[in-house]
Amino acid sequence: MALNFRYIMYRTNTCGELRLIDINKEVSLAGWVQTVRKFGSITFIDLRDRYGITQLLFSENLNALLDANPLGREFVLQIKGNVHERSSKNANIPTGEIEINVTEYNILNKSALPPFTIQDDTDGGDDIRMKYRFLDLRRNAIKKNLELRYQVNRCTRNYLHENNFMDIETPFLIKSTPEGARDFVVPSRMNPGQFYALPQSPQTFKQLLMVSGYDRYYQIVKCFRDEDLRADRQPEFTQIDCEMAFVGQDDIIQIFEGLIKQIFKDVKGIDYTDKVERMTWEDAMWQYGNDKPDIRFDISICNLKKPKTIFTDKNDFAHLIKDVDFKVFDEAETVVAIAIPGCSEYSRKQTDELTEWVKRPQIGMKGLVFIKYNTDGTYKSSVDKFYSELKLKTIAEAAHAKVGDLILILAGAEEKTRKAISDLRMYLADRLGLRKSTEFKLLWVIDFPLFEYDEEGNRWVARHHPFTSPKQDHINLMINNNPVIENAETYLEHPYANIKANAYDMVLNGNEIGGGSIRIYQRALQEKMFAALGMNAAEQQHKFGFLLGAFEYGAPPHGGIAFGFDRLCAILGGSESIRDFIAFPKNNSGRDVMLDAPSTIEEKQFEELQIKLNIK
Amino acid sequence: MALNFRYIMYRTNTCGELRLIDINKEVSLAGWVQTVRKFGSITFIDLRDRYGITQLLFSENLNALLDANPLGREFVLQIKGNVHERSSKNANIPTGEIEINVTEYNILNKSALPPFTIQDDTDGGDDIRMKYRFLDLRRNAIKKNLELRYQVNRCTRNYLHENNFMDIETPFLIKSTPEGARDFVVPSRMNPGQFYALPQSPQTFKQLLMVSGYDRYYQIVKCFRDEDLRADRQPEFTQIDCEMAFVGQDDIIQIFEGLIKQIFKDVKGIDYTDKVERMTWEDAMWQYGNDKPDIRFDISICNLKKPKTIFTDKNDFAHLIKDVDFKVFDEAETVVAIAIPGCSEYSRKQTDELTEWVKRPQIGMKGLVFIKYNTDGTYKSSVDKFYSELKLKTIAEAAHAKVGDLILILAGAEEKTRKAISDLRMYLADRLGLRKSTEFKLLWVIDFPLFEYDEEGNRWVARHHPFTSPKQDHINLMINNNPVIENAETYLEHPYANIKANAYDMVLNGNEIGGGSIRIYQRALQEKMFAALGMNAAEQQHKFGFLLGAFEYGAPPHGGIAFGFDRLCAILGGSESIRDFIAFPKNNSGRDVMLDAPSTIEEKQFEELQIKLNIK
Repeated sequence: MALNFRYIMYRTNTCGELRLIDINKEVSLAGWVQTVRKFGSITFIDLRDRYGITQLLFSENLNALLDANPLGREFVLQIKGNVHERSSKNANIPTGEIEINVTEYNILNKSALPPFTIQDDTDGGDDIRMKYRFLDLRRNAIKKNLELRYQVNRCTRNYLHENNFMDIETPFLIKSTPEGARDFVVPSRMNPGQFYALPQSPQTFKQLLMVSGYDRYYQIVKCFRDEDLRADRQPEFTQIDCEMAFVGQDDIIQIFEGLIKQIFKDVKGIDYTDKVERMTWEDAMWQYGNDKPDIRFDISICNLKKPKTIFTDKNDFAHLIKDVDFKVFDEAETVVAIAIPGCSEYSRKQTDELTEWVKRPQIGMKGLVFIKYNTDGTYKSSVDKFYSELKLKTIAEAAHAKVGDLILILAGAEEKTRKAISDLRMYLADRLGLRKSTEFKLLWVIDFPLFEYDEEGNRWVARHHPFTSPKQDHINLMINNNPVIENAETYLEHPYANIKANAYDMVLNGNEIGGGSIRIYQRALQEKMFAALGMNAAEQQHKFGFLLGAFEYGAPPHGGIAFGFDRLCAILGGSESIRDFIAFPKNNSGRDVMLDAPSTIEEKQFEELQIKLNIK
Repeated sequence: MALNFRYIMYRTNTCGELRLIDINKEVSLAGWVQTVRKFGSITFIDLRDRYGITQLLFSENLNALLDANPLGREFVLQIKGNVHERSSKNANIPTGEIEINVTEYNILNKSALPPFTIQDDTDGGDDIRMKYRFLDLRRNAIKKNLELRYQVNRCTRNYLHENNFMDIETPFLIKSTPEGARDFVVPSRMNPGQFYALPQSPQTFKQLLMVSGYDRYYQIVKCFRDEDLRADRQPEFTQIDCEMAFVGQDDIIQIFEGLIKQIFKDVKGIDYTDKVERMTWEDAMWQYGNDKPDIRFDISICNLKKPKTIFTDKNDFAHLIKDVDFKVFDEAETVVAIAIPGCSEYSRKQTDELTEWVKRPQIGMKGLVFIKYNTDGTYKSSVDKFYSELKLKTIAEAAHAKVGDLILILAGAEEKTRKAISDLRMYLADRLGLRKSTEFKLLWVIDFPLFEYDEEGNRWVARHHPFTSPKQDHINLMINNNPVIENAETYLEHPYANIKANAYDMVLNGNEIGGGSIRIYQRALQEKMFAALGMNAAEQQHKFGFLLGAFEYGAPPHGGIAFGFDRLCAILGGSESIRDFIAFPKNNSGRDVMLDAPSTIEEKQFEELQIKLNIK
């Protein structure tokens, strides 16, 4: 009775394709048993494959056979039968109008009872699902994510191909040049005592390809960083990596805005026609308190008081809050406010909760001042004894508050306070449902600082990476000044603090999804850059001699961008977690719990590699 | 005078696109100076970019400026000018009918004199070209290779996409399970004393994906093997890696024959309509002496005498050579012949040379017997005193010799002799120009042995890998026999020697370009296989517990194939060397001489990784 197809296709159709039009056809299907429902002498089985679910009907004549060889969940089944119209149709699935009247069946493989249900709302916890990832991947929710990932992959390749980009593979076994993050290293057996490194990105290779004349390069490529893993970071991750020659920032922005819009169209069916705003880094920090603002909702910072050393071109509203002897504001470096729409009627309990929230160690504020712009037009605040209602009104106006809004004010040291107001803004937006996962809003943040101050070393580090060029107008500032910081206290007054980079980030819904820069392509400037970062000539030569060398032989102007592929997919999928968009992710200790990797290796391997452990 | 475009596209056109139709247009171009030719007060420059070469005319009015800022080879130049018709046209290049009358120019970057010429016939040796790979990549010859590689990549993805395959990324930091080749390992800082391994292939992951229901998977993916590098092997290489569920061997063969034919069409413009022959491994060995025969030319082996223990179903021509008391043949295990077309008039010197060739240590034969089937119809041989002309004639007939052919005969131990005749066949085909790089001939070799005898360990090893299934008819042979080899002398008589695998190789022009198999998908059979390879239960669980586990939860029948992408590209490009088809290859010691990698790492890295050197 059972089929015994061998070395021929196991099925004529998939479980997702049969319709009313196929009625009376004889078909064969193969897939997994999703459910078994027995009604007296007949049995219904939902058979599942990658393409869908089809209902099978085992009628009375197969009863004895079924009883002898009962089918269980996740059994692999091959059947032959005829397509029939269902008596009770299921409008929820595309195959819901038909069923297969099974004439023969063959159990291709049995299954033990799965440790969790293979359903969208599974009963499996995170750990068990990771251990049995091969079962977790069967769930429709995860399958959809990987399908979306493939769609983004495909769309990206098509778009870049049409724009003359070439996929060129760069090596994975390269040289260790630890700058920012730690390298993963690979001992070389053939070169004892020496190590390869896995690439943190193909940065220098794509630049060399520009020197070589391949003027539009791309790769969807794995990169590796041995960092302490924060939630939702992976030691290996995928980048859409691109580089172009003979271009400036506007060209890059135009091409890659096009890419993202194409992805929106192909993958999400969204015609993204809005003009994508370009915001300077300084404006982003001034208005949103961070460099990847979520601009889906209209809450921005009112700078009531700004610090002396930065934002020198901006105007604050210091005159509105001074001269009332309110020490908290008078003594603070920075005072910032946001107006939260429709929250003026928050209870004492609710405002107290917000105060507790900003006082948590992660935020670290001493307190929270609020002003309620009540629906009756009055103003009420937690600092009524310092500020008259008229003064509260002018502050509320400065914060663009509308009637019914709750104005929240934080005061303190610049860096901490600005981060706190940004966090508070995001926290409340989440609470108020203003961050909709189905709404997408792009933004370019440009004109980043070239350097970042490293407190520990009292020195400059590259904010992006050492290959990013300074703005043309700032090159002299860089060349003509000594990078050494004489006084750590006043580092912000050092000329390097003001050098801006030809760097740009693409931000989607408050996430940096891509970042890049126009690169340095002149040897002298690159050397100056390395020197500014504290690398002496010998070190420069050891680590980047090949690149400096390449710049001597006709390097063209060039620039590029890299997108975090995992995160991009997660955001498009409306998720906060990248892990569900990676087929075989690692956990927060960098372990693959399914494989149980990393693991010990054999003594022979140590001997061949001429290394040994040195555990402390 | 000089342009100073900044942050706008540096060019309106590429150096490959302007034609007569563009005459009088004002254009700007950017590229590299290929040649400078000065004729009195005018200067011609060939400007090169990725897309072609355009001739620039600097007329008298730019003379002074040019003299002050002379242009050299490989300078990066941006120009503005008008398209003119050339007076003396160059039919060799697509832009040969026009030139640009330069009105403004801008030297974007200078170049030192390159260490070798950037031309097809470069004066640079291998070492210098590898050191300055970024310049080597500018040469048209290499650029064409990388373009071909990208075309193959693109075509492969399109074909597989249209056939419902999904690109799913598998991890690079996995578990070390050294079976065949050595793993590259990566010390884990977060898990001291433990190591990741880099994948030798995504084999087990793609099988897990089949268990997960993603029934058509592919990836173009880097793989890593720490082997002693033979010429033209790379420690990292690229695979087109594919797997399908619910299929048999015929399905795989059909789909992937289609892929290669599509590549021929898209990349080479070849409509490959010939039926692709399927040859059993045994027939390939019998007729060609190796398992990846080049069948572009019609020379096959005549088995004059076969060994007793193998090829038991085949008939030899032993009766033609015996009973003449020629001990060399009588005492040999194997006597094989090939007929070389049109070489009957080889001189004594030439046949002596062939004899020397087979006596070289790499071949290791004791001598060579030849028969000339002369153009006058007579037969002459080096063993005339043993064989009458009539006997020679029957031997020549057995070898399918035509008049004018030279029949070469080798005798000795089976393995060595068969390899020798195969090598001799290829050597002579090369010499006679029978292996044309523009001719392509595909072949499937099927029915490989499942096991290979490992002399050192006197045990069985997997010929393909431990996941390959035995032929259905041979499963019992495997299950019911003890894998232990009692007597090394007679290993060929062990039942395991006769077990054939559901394995197949795709051969192109004498190269294995792809190989795969139908996999084991039952836990019990997989365990039996591991055990046959000498792995005890604990070891099986440690190394492959996840896979055995997966087979318990409804694993479908599945199989796949992987193509060596580097070699496929090289063969399509008509080259023997894969290195010229890889952007940044490594040399035979696994070194990237441009980067100078691998290299030493910093003390801090050793400390963090908790390892130290143990150099002998």
